[in-house]
Amino acid sequence: MPRVTEDHLAARRRQILDGARRCFAQYGYESATVRRLEQTIGLSRGAIFHHFRDKDTLFFELAREDAERMAEVASREGLIQVMRDLLAAPDQFDWLTTRLEIARKLRNDPAFHSGWAERSAELSDATTARLRRQKQAGRLREDVPADVLQTYLDLVLDGLVARLASGDEPERLSAVLDLVEASVRQQ
Amino acid sequence: MPRVTEDHLAARRRQILDGARRCFAQYGYESATVRRLEQTIGLSRGAIFHHFRDKDTLFFELAREDAERMAEVASREGLIQVMRDLLAAPDQFDWLTTRLEIARKLRNDPAFHSGWAERSAELSDATTARLRRQKQAGRLREDVPADVLQTYLDLVLDGLVARLASGDEPERLSAVLDLVEASVRQQ
Repeated sequence: MPRVTEDHLAARRRQILDGARRCFAQYGYESATVRRLEQTIGLSRGAIFHHFRDKDTLFFELAREDAERMAEVASREGLIQVMRDLLAAPDQFDWLTTRLEIARKLRNDPAFHSGWAERSAELSDATTARLRRQKQAGRLREDVPADVLQTYLDLVLDGLVARLASGDEPERLSAVLDLVEASVRQQ
Repeated sequence: MPRVTEDHLAARRRQILDGARRCFAQYGYESATVRRLEQTIGLSRGAIFHHFRDKDTLFFELAREDAERMAEVASREGLIQVMRDLLAAPDQFDWLTTRLEIARKLRNDPAFHSGWAERSAELSDATTARLRRQKQAGRLREDVPADVLQTYLDLVLDGLVARLASGDEPERLSAVLDLVEASVRQQ
């Protein structure tokens, strides 16, 4: 493919993803209709769905981008640092709230569940690998299986997003993360 | 008021609340439209809104009933026991999911936020009082302020609901609650 076409394609994809992220953040998952996606992105539905098959595919690609970014931090500094970064980025709250809004769909729609799980795999793999290294280094408590620690951290991430979305103070939540961090460490 | 009319009123309110709970559980907060409420409850909108001013008032009353029931357990056995009870009642999952779906509304609608906070106050008061008694009895860790412990437990409750709603195994989550319980105790 000629270079100029490739650049054009990449720019168009970027325009669509950035607009879609704003649209989901503003209206929430269910209310981000195709009409609203057109308005926020500034392209027709034909142009949008030429690049991404449907609304779910668009949403999954945003989830994949998030997971990739978070996995990089999780791999280097752990999932708790990912959460500290969330606390420091209040402009992300409205987008994060969509994570909560899809819970019902995750439960009732197996195809959506597996699409979401596939795109989130990078983050959970990074967390698993990091926990294994921490355990080998003797920094993790030994009396709780690693898979339970991982579920604990996943649960804290969801809880953090929920409390942030409901308006809790980042300072208070930061103190909670200190407690969580201490509770997974070797005592 | 004559006894028979009082009984009739109470039965009518009960019919409306039970139907509304099923409707919110099935469709989610946003999609529980007035038409669907009519169908699930089996009464006209006129009859429903004669007893409850609007959809939010209905929803708040269900939240108040939950908070009252959970506060009783929290006061006697703590918020972690409330969470263990949730794990043991899988038929409640779909209703609990509505707690997550209102996060955006809690953030963006101050009247809704204060209505919800008012109806949830009984549970947080019960948790605060229980934490105070546990602290006095020397069963609570001393190095973390009680308000941070309370926020931690609130966060774990929301995270638990999110993981349950997304389809996590109750057994794994139960092991996570053991870890949470140990982490708030006097070491």
